[in-house]
Amino acid sequence: MDEPLDFNLTCPAPIRRYPHILLAHGGGGRLMHDLLDSVITPAFKNEILNQGHDSAVLDVPTGRLAFTTDSYVVHPLFFPGGDIGSMAVYGTVNDLAMSGASAVALSVGLILEEGLPMETLWRVVQSIGAAARQCGVRIATGDTKVVERGKGDGVFVNTSGVGVVRSSNVISPAGVLSGDVIIVNGDLGRHGMAVMAVREGLEFESEIDSDSAPVAEAVMALIDAGIDVHCLRDLTRGGLASTVNEIAKASGTGITLEETAVPVRSDVSAACEILGFDPLYVACEGRFAAFVPERDAERAVEIISANSPAEAAVIGRVTGEPPGLVTLTSRIGTRRILDMMSGEQLPRIC
Amino acid sequence: MDEPLDFNLTCPAPIRRYPHILLAHGGGGRLMHDLLDSVITPAFKNEILNQGHDSAVLDVPTGRLAFTTDSYVVHPLFFPGGDIGSMAVYGTVNDLAMSGASAVALSVGLILEEGLPMETLWRVVQSIGAAARQCGVRIATGDTKVVERGKGDGVFVNTSGVGVVRSSNVISPAGVLSGDVIIVNGDLGRHGMAVMAVREGLEFESEIDSDSAPVAEAVMALIDAGIDVHCLRDLTRGGLASTVNEIAKASGTGITLEETAVPVRSDVSAACEILGFDPLYVACEGRFAAFVPERDAERAVEIISANSPAEAAVIGRVTGEPPGLVTLTSRIGTRRILDMMSGEQLPRIC
Repeated sequence: MDEPLDFNLTCPAPIRRYPHILLAHGGGGRLMHDLLDSVITPAFKNEILNQGHDSAVLDVPTGRLAFTTDSYVVHPLFFPGGDIGSMAVYGTVNDLAMSGASAVALSVGLILEEGLPMETLWRVVQSIGAAARQCGVRIATGDTKVVERGKGDGVFVNTSGVGVVRSSNVISPAGVLSGDVIIVNGDLGRHGMAVMAVREGLEFESEIDSDSAPVAEAVMALIDAGIDVHCLRDLTRGGLASTVNEIAKASGTGITLEETAVPVRSDVSAACEILGFDPLYVACEGRFAAFVPERDAERAVEIISANSPAEAAVIGRVTGEPPGLVTLTSRIGTRRILDMMSGEQLPRIC
Repeated sequence: MDEPLDFNLTCPAPIRRYPHILLAHGGGGRLMHDLLDSVITPAFKNEILNQGHDSAVLDVPTGRLAFTTDSYVVHPLFFPGGDIGSMAVYGTVNDLAMSGASAVALSVGLILEEGLPMETLWRVVQSIGAAARQCGVRIATGDTKVVERGKGDGVFVNTSGVGVVRSSNVISPAGVLSGDVIIVNGDLGRHGMAVMAVREGLEFESEIDSDSAPVAEAVMALIDAGIDVHCLRDLTRGGLASTVNEIAKASGTGITLEETAVPVRSDVSAACEILGFDPLYVACEGRFAAFVPERDAERAVEIISANSPAEAAVIGRVTGEPPGLVTLTSRIGTRRILDMMSGEQLPRIC
């Protein structure tokens, strides 16, 4: 799981013949084929993509498949701890993991803005390729479009993914039961604050790195250990608070969270205070909540921690009542309703 | 295959509370859930999408799966004979068909520009839903992002698709053999000229309608009839000329086309002349080339015609020599190399 991408690599010279993306790079003709052959396909190289056909043909085992899609419009494209390319791979691999599925193949759809520096595209596709290898998943099929200057914003990436469901449980909000314990796989809010800090030009004593990372290893370890996983959900847009609200509503249960149990790093907490954000609503890109029965909680925390870059923690419980509502017990012991985010805190965080 | 979309329908009143898309509609909070619940999910309604989870879980039969992706950035969003929504569905269903696969599930990723009229979005998702029902495929999973005004262009749509391969042949450029006959399923160039006519504000005596349509029925009929299909390819960006060049190069064969055999409607031909385009390079969105052995050619033409809105025609042959080159025999009997398109004829045609 550790193949850091060397961004000090430089874009090979032949690719620099066109220093910027032209409209013709999306036109279906010679320039598009040159772009695919020199920049895009080599970054993703594998035997399936090299079939070079309209769709990729995969041999898959019998059974249940998971299928998911996400578009990525994060701004800026590169931020401390990650970039749009690796994030697009991790995000889709993570969405598959949230259904207990192991990723088999990804697609990559690129929407490029005319004038995009070729080297920027090169860095993004290198990052996609490296992240896919890190996650053991192949880029099986792709598509590249170009829009006129001022009709896009550099690069938008869509990744869709197909995975094989490895859990015999149906892992979904419908599986959540009263008495379940809620575990997160690490400290919250780093991704959102890392992106905001770059965007706002803020400097903190220590740089806040995004938490962007694949979580499939931790999830597969839970499943392989026979933990009775009821539901999994990654804590992306809207953060922990919106996610648990979605699950409370979908499952018709009540959820209580303990504010003191929610891990937030002190620098993230300070940055949130300065910028006026509540860390409970800030997006993560490598964090998830697992809903497991009380009896499995301790073992689940151990397994997640052993397979994650951060420490897992129990942060709340499913209570059954009041259905559809999330309650937060604060540091000073008061209880309040924790609502879904209304309005927009952080545009284009993913 | 015939459920025309009634664009005279009007967007339901509750959806008009927000007459335009706001950044918060992509933020992961309450407004995003309102948008999904009131506009997007109802248009695609089916039991899989309603699982409402990070990824959809599908039961698929054993065997070979096809997987494909396409982003759609066509401008304008609506044009005679089609729109970005139905085109995104047909295009991905068609890409699956080109591998001999029948579509099982699609994903829909939307990138919306802040300020997009809600009614426009509503029309696009209605069209996606209707086209999916027409093709017998479910929208299994989706994603919606919003970018700031001036960082996108109304709506970009990504559709990825999963299909079950129904052909026992491996249908791909590698399957093309010397002696194969090349068949197209109808007249060429209508999609490109329909879009260009709107964009340039041109009026012809009769309006040119796009050929945008699903072709899976014709393809499945070929397979079911036991036609030995060697390769299929849809004639999108770069048109017929670029497509057959791709296949000649990938298969290492030579291809000869007969200009007089290539069906082009006279109004399309006239429009091409006015605008300075060559119809052989103009994109279609409901046309494909089938490579079959000579012995199956006549039957294949009959089957395709019986399952298509237009007449199929034999337009050329695979000759083996010279490898990788496409030769065109013109109306007056001269022969010339037909090259891949260089540069850009028609930006944002799909």
